[in-house]
Parts: sequence; C-alpha cells; structure tokens
Amino acid sequence: MNGADLLCETLLANGIDTCFANPGTSEMHFVAALDRQPRMRCVLGLFEGVVTGAADGYARMADRPAATLLHTGPGLANALANMHNARRARTPMVNVVGDHAGYHLPYDAPLTADIESLARPMSHWVGRAATADDLGQATSEAIRAAITGAGGVATLILPADAAWTDTAAAVPAPVAAPGCDGPDAAALREAAGALAAGGAVTILVTGLALREAQLDLLDRIAQKTGARLMAQQANGRMQRGAGRVAVDRVPYVIDQALATFAATETVILIGAKAPVGFFAYPGKPSSMLPEHCRVIALAGPDDDLAAAVAALADETGAHGVAAPRHAQRLVPDLPAGALTPDAIAAAIARMMPAHAIICDEAVSSGRDFFRFTHGAEPHDFLQLTGGAIGLGIPMTTGAAVACPDRKVIGLQADGSGMYTVQGLWTQARERLDVVTIVFANRRYAILHGELKNVGITRAVDNARKMLDLDDPALDWVKIANGLGVEAARADTIEGFCDILRAALASKGPFLIEAVI
Amino acid sequence: MNGADLLCETLLANGIDTCFANPGTSEMHFVAALDRQPRMRCVLGLFEGVVTGAADGYARMADRPAATLLHTGPGLANALANMHNARRARTPMVNVVGDHAGYHLPYDAPLTADIESLARPMSHWVGRAATADDLGQATSEAIRAAITGAGGVATLILPADAAWTDTAAAVPAPVAAPGCDGPDAAALREAAGALAAGGAVTILVTGLALREAQLDLLDRIAQKTGARLMAQQANGRMQRGAGRVAVDRVPYVIDQALATFAATETVILIGAKAPVGFFAYPGKPSSMLPEHCRVIALAGPDDDLAAAVAALADETGAHGVAAPRHAQRLVPDLPAGALTPDAIAAAIARMMPAHAIICDEAVSSGRDFFRFTHGAEPHDFLQLTGGAIGLGIPMTTGAAVACPDRKVIGLQADGSGMYTVQGLWTQARERLDVVTIVFANRRYAILHGELKNVGITRAVDNARKMLDLDDPALDWVKIANGLGVEAARADTIEGFCDILRAALASKGPFLIEAVI
Repeated sequence: MNGADLLCETLLANGIDTCFANPGTSEMHFVAALDRQPRMRCVLGLFEGVVTGAADGYARMADRPAATLLHTGPGLANALANMHNARRARTPMVNVVGDHAGYHLPYDAPLTADIESLARPMSHWVGRAATADDLGQATSEAIRAAITGAGGVATLILPADAAWTDTAAAVPAPVAAPGCDGPDAAALREAAGALAAGGAVTILVTGLALREAQLDLLDRIAQKTGARLMAQQANGRMQRGAGRVAVDRVPYVIDQALATFAATETVILIGAKAPVGFFAYPGKPSSMLPEHCRVIALAGPDDDLAAAVAALADETGAHGVAAPRHAQRLVPDLPAGALTPDAIAAAIARMMPAHAIICDEAVSSGRDFFRFTHGAEPHDFLQLTGGAIGLGIPMTTGAAVACPDRKVIGLQADGSGMYTVQGLWTQARERLDVVTIVFANRRYAILHGELKNVGITRAVDNARKMLDLDDPALDWVKIANGLGVEAARADTIEGFCDILRAALASKGPFLIEAVI
Repeated sequence: MNGADLLCETLLANGIDTCFANPGTSEMHFVAALDRQPRMRCVLGLFEGVVTGAADGYARMADRPAATLLHTGPGLANALANMHNARRARTPMVNVVGDHAGYHLPYDAPLTADIESLARPMSHWVGRAATADDLGQATSEAIRAAITGAGGVATLILPADAAWTDTAAAVPAPVAAPGCDGPDAAALREAAGALAAGGAVTILVTGLALREAQLDLLDRIAQKTGARLMAQQANGRMQRGAGRVAVDRVPYVIDQALATFAATETVILIGAKAPVGFFAYPGKPSSMLPEHCRVIALAGPDDDLAAAVAALADETGAHGVAAPRHAQRLVPDLPAGALTPDAIAAAIARMMPAHAIICDEAVSSGRDFFRFTHGAEPHDFLQLTGGAIGLGIPMTTGAAVACPDRKVIGLQADGSGMYTVQGLWTQARERLDVVTIVFANRRYAILHGELKNVGITRAVDNARKMLDLDDPALDWVKIANGLGVEAARADTIEGFCDILRAALASKGPFLIEAVI
C-alpha cells in the first residue's frame, strides 16, 4: 500500500465513497489507487468548477461529504468559486489537491503555486500531508473538519511523493463527528421572553432548521407566540411544498429586504446570520435590520439547531399547539399567454413529481418561484448560497448522483449557466435524471437592473457590450447536444409545457431552453 | 468625475485601451464609467478564464497590457488559472477586481472573500485603492508593476465606494517604463570565456530574445562559437518560420529533456530558467542538467535581453559572422493516409498564410508541430506557459483582438479546450479571424501516458472513467455552433485539408474538429 491507497482507504472507512475528479499528472498515483479500489465511485468533471459544485450538490442531499480530486494550484483555482458557495452553505466537502513532490517545489516548475494561499479563503480547513505515513492522519483531520458543526470545506494537499511512497501505516479508525452545542441558556431565556412579550419578532433560520421536523416545531412556536418565521435569503437546502410548513426567505432586492424588517423589533437567529445587503449601495445601509432592532443569537451555525428549536418550543409551550400549519396541495391551472418566468414557475408547480430536488440558479428569473410552489408536491430546494454564479448545473449533477431515484430540476439563468456548462457532459456520462430549464433572456438581466440603479437609464455602447448576450444568441439546444444531452427549445408557454411534461416523464438528462 | 472615471482615464492615458470584462454588481459604477468613455474597447467574456486568457494573448501580441474587469473574490478565482499562465509568460496585465464598499466588508455579505490571498499567488503586484482620490495613483502603480522588466500581472482591487465617490484628483502623468539592467559584467566575461573554450555549451533563451532581431544575433554567436541555441520548453512568444532562425525547445517529456542535456557542460541563460522537470517522477531528477553542468545566468527575465544578446555578440566577435542561418521556405506535400497530428501539422505548414499567429494548446497532439513548421511562412508561436490548461481558446481570442489583420490559428487539445470553451462566443461576437483546430482524441491522452509511467498498463474502471472522454463523445461542431461559431468535422486528412483551406481563405471564426 502506498500513501495514495492509504488516503483512499481512509476516505472509504469514513463512508466517503464518491469522488468527483479532474486529475492531472501529479495525481496519477492517486488515480492508480482509485483504479485499484472499485468501492470508490469516481465521477469526472471536464472543468474543476463542475467537480466542486457537484460535490456541493451531492453532500447537500446525501448529508455526508464527497471527496474531490483536483490538480495543483491552477486546478484548485478553477474549483474555488464553487468551494466558496459550499463554504457559505456549510456543505461538508473533502478536497484532495495534488501538488508536486516536496523536493521538487524549490525548482519552481511551471505549475508550482502557493496552494495554501489559494485554498484558505474558500476552506474551513487547509492541511498538507508531509509523507505517505501521514496520510491516514491527515485525511482523518480533513474529514473531521468537514463534518464538524454544520459542515465545512476541508482542503488536503497531497504531494506526489507522499502519494507514491509505500507505507505500513494502518488506516485510522473512522472519525467520530464532534457533538454540537445546544442553545445558550441566557439566549434561550431572552428569546422566550421576547416571544412572550408579543412584539414584532422574526425567527430567522437556516441549515438543519429548514428540514421538515424542525419546521413543524418552528411553526408551532410561531402559532403560539405570533412570531414570524423566515428563512435566510440563501440556504443550502429547504424542505418545502404541500404537507410542509411554508416559509418565505429574506428578499434579495435591498429595498424589499429593508421593507421586510422595517417594523421588526426583535430577531431570533437559529443558525442564520443577521440579514445584510448582498451588495452595498450608495446611501443605503449594510444591515437590513432597523437601528434599534434587538438581535438574539439563539444558536450559531455550528450549534445543534434541532436542539435549539426543541428547547425554544419547550420554553414557549409550543408543544401544546395542536398541529403545524401545512401548505395545502395546490395545482395551478396550465399557464397561458407569454412564456414568462412566472408562467414557467406555474408549469413546474403543476407538473413536478413528488420529492423532486429543485436547484435554483435562475437569478433574476427565479425570484417569484416560491409563491407558485408553496403548494407543489413536496420537494427539496437548493440555492446558490455564496453568490458565485456557475453552481447551478454542477449542483444538479451532484444532487442526482446522491439521489438516483429522485427527479432533479435545475432552474438555470443563461448567463450563469455558461460558467460551468461543461457539467452537462457529466450528466450525460452518468445518465443522471436531471431536467435543466434555461431561462434564456439573453442578457445579464440582474446587471441591467443594477445599472439603472446607478443612474444609467440607457446604456450607450460599452455597457451594452458587457451586459447583453444577444449577439450572437447562445443556442442552448446545440450546446447541450454537443455535450451529449438531449434538449429542446420553447418559445411559447404551450410548447414549454409539452416539453416539460415529456422531460419529466422520461429518465435521463434533458435541457429545455425557454426563450423568455 | 468619480473614482471609476479616474481609473478609466488613467488606463487610457497609459495607452491601455482594451478591457476584457466580466462584470458584476459591485463593478456597476466602473461599467457606467466605461460606458461614458468610447475610447475604451470593452470585450465581454462569458467566463473569467476567458477574460484573463484573452488579456494574455492580447498583450503577448500587442506588447502592451490590456485591462481586465473581474467581479469580487469568486470572479477573480475563476480568472486565476490563466493569470498563472500569464505570470509564467511574464505577460503585462492590469486586472481590476471589484470588491464591496469598504464599510460593507465587516458584514461578511455572501460574496465577501479574502481577495488578496487569492490574488497573490498569481500576481506580481496586488494593491487596493482605499478611496476615489487614490485611484489615479493606485492605477499608476498597477501599470508600473505590469510594465516593469519582462512584464507582470498586476491586480488592483477596486472597492465599490472608491468607484462611486466623486473626486477632484487629476489623472496622473503616464507611467514611464522603468529601464532594465544590461548583463552583469562578470557573467558576460564568464559566458564569453565558456564559449571561447569550445566545450558543449547551450545558450538557453526566452522572452524578447525570441524575436527576429535577437535570434539573428544569437545564431551568429552560435555560428561563431559552435554553441547550441535553444528555447525554453514553454515561451510566451517566438518568432519563427521561413526567413528566420530555427530554434528548438527543451522537450516536455522528461527522458527526452534529460537526453537533450546529457552531454552539456555549460548552459548560458538569457531570460530563461535552468530547465527543470515539468513534474517530478520517482527516481528521476528535478533538474534536467547533468550534475556538473555549469550554469551562467547572463541575463535574468527582467534584464534587458536585447542588450545581453548584443553584448554577448560583441564579446564573442559574432557581429563579424556574415549572416544568420535562416530556415528555408519548405512546402510539405499534401499529406495522405490517416488523420494524425503529424499530418495535420504538415497541412498547416503547407497552407498557413504569412504572419499567422499560432496559439498552441495541443498538449500531447502538438509535440511534433515544430519540425514541420520551421520552413512554414513566418509566424508567431504562442504557448501554454504555466501548464494551466484552458488557455488556448482565450489566447487566440485575445491575439485576434490585438492583430485584426493577421490570421490566428489555435492548436487545441479537446480535453483542455473544454475548460474555457466559452471563449468561442467572444470570437463570434467580435468577428475575430480565428481558426481553431481541435485535436479530438477523446481522452486525456497525456494522462494515459503518465498512468503507464506509474505502472498501470491497463486501466480497470475508475482510471478509465477519469481519463476517457468518449462516453459520450463531445460534438465540437454542435458546441461551436451553439456558441455562434461556424464549424466542421474532419475524419480524413483529405477532408481536413479541404476544410482548412476554406477556413483560411475566409475571414471570421471557424472551428475544425479533427477526429484523430
């Protein structure tokens, strides 16, 4: 056994049996080790952003990390944007980044780069194995970092000589996930007091508090106390739809977010952060909360959110509430008229199967999706969490690897879809059951809005050149076909509904270009 | 005038009039400033790797930097791999990375990241403007860093509030390029002495020493002294072809590189680094030079290479040599038989027009290109310099923006072409005169070779899953068409020649999928 085998066996001993990969020469001994070990499922991405985005989508649904395999500093660099999203989602992830043999680094060969400096901003943990003998321990540390608290992005640097050197070191015992803290007693009393006082209280949640059981309890608390329940603007995963508690999110648009909290006196945070502007705007505040709003941090992201919700229910007597208020199943009429984002949302709400996984990177086209789908079949809803566009297609890919028996539906803006379009090929290769709906407005619509906000009502030339995608128009059907994925274009809502119905009825990857 | 205007005017005052861009909300005031200033040519890339790769190709041909516009930490992250290549090529580049307003950073909004930590490994200079008033000075410093010595990658972080705040600061005077040092007198004497002694001497060069005039002088030195002239394994730009001095490069394959220098007693470096292995391999050395080989650093990469060559010519009496030995024009026969990389190289050598720009990211398929093209029409040859694949398509894009009257030919491996395939769209949008030849071997062929090197002669399953691209095969014609670029597939050498002839005869972007 060499160091690469030890790394592979340590991953498997911890239940990490899926490796999203884009290898290079310095990882060839790890590739050979993976080839010797059929228990590891290796999934190739044709670009590293696909690899980490897929690992993110996988772990959000599997509730355990995947490994990734990346090639030296530049390969890691390509992977960083989706590591950033995973870090914001608190997704567990174990990245293995190959590097030159330690003795080769001083020669500054072309691919040499400061991997640690690149990895640190997008990782909760960064480590480097020194020798083959170290690799069991180093891998265990990476896994521990990935599964601690809400979850973390761990990046383990694997020097080629540590991979290729023989070792007699044993595979370490599986890592036990460190326990999480329950809620702080003082914060719990303060929260219960605020709820008892009956002012305008918002309970703001994210993470595991957005799973079905926690939402039921949270709604009981809301019923008992009159508080408002709300989710963060962006969340790694929400369970929603008919038969579940309907929760709205903090709006993305700053004026709407400010209005949402204008009358709020107290915010109780469970896993969530106090809401801030996605961007700064001249003359507008950074915090979305009114100046005198009290913020009670009942549970931080790394605390035991289920315990915090249960304790708050105890403290408020919410267990006595008969039943949570669940969204009723609501089947919208078949939409008619123009092919708009709202019409598309209504069509999806009508047709999506139970237990679908919705991955949302629709950006400006997806903002009203929620109000159409509170009563859709129960589903999981996965979002772009860090604002780094290019997560959508990879996230659907990874979610489909994790959940082969569930239909995955990607809501995909065209501008952001182009960042990691290569992920479609992985869907074809792995025969993944993903329907990607591209909202083809042929522009960076979100930026057109922002340009108006800064006072440019009519772009002259350079702004148009940087914000419009219409010359030439992207042909998503051809792009998808070229990557091995069946596709069709819809220009009318009737055409869209026909295509969506067929795509949902069959298995395997399909892309719909919805020209809106 | 606000800070963004001041930044834009400072770039223009320094002759930087091309900006490759992929903007976001935090750069919207800079977008507005660019929209007010039609002298700046803004070129959109649909992914940031396209942006920096194009800026690299542009500057290699224009001999002056382009600006780039990137969106916060994740946008920079996507740009890093091609910044790495530019850093290795010593390409001048001025990156402008938008960030949140300074006062917004402590709120840790979703896109917040440690931009400096990300930028540093791939930049020669990293700076941040504090206020709008600073921006003229900060931009000048970035430009100075970009044009100092051989050239450098400068990354200027632009906080949104520095961009949007009004300023009365004047546009600074244009930056004067700092002078370069001539050769060290002692090194010059040592080099001349080694050449006079008549042992096995290799003069190893890169950078500006690979331009026509320097090559003429270097060949005279070689004739006079019997030394061998050679270029680095990877070089930003070489002038070559008929009527120019033919120079070979250090081979990529380690055993070939070792053999190349096995008998070498002295290496004289002019801009080049002493040759090292691209990767480390068990039991093989990191340096490609024999243990007792003397290394004389006549001129470092930031020194005046033309002055160093001239001084060495003086010192060796090479000016007395009648004429440099130029490659004769050699028109290969039309190739016949199988469609192989060699046949493709012969076809290109036969058909390429004078003053074409060849951008090489053919990886394993391009290794023999040189021997077919020493006698082709004179051309510039641009290489992947840092090993970070995904430079090819962007580099052709930028070179074509810099040289609209020259035909650009991309030699593109299929695996690496997928990393930044989005660049084809920019070629269509800007009507760039680029012919991209995709060597479609449908595998990471270079890694199959490396896998054999580590003892796996027959991949079982996981290795095959990570190294083969044949399931499904990429359809490059459809992908290119989907991105707005005309394309055709060739399965035979006759078909390839017909398509290449037609593509070279017409203007505008075209892609040839050569199934090899």
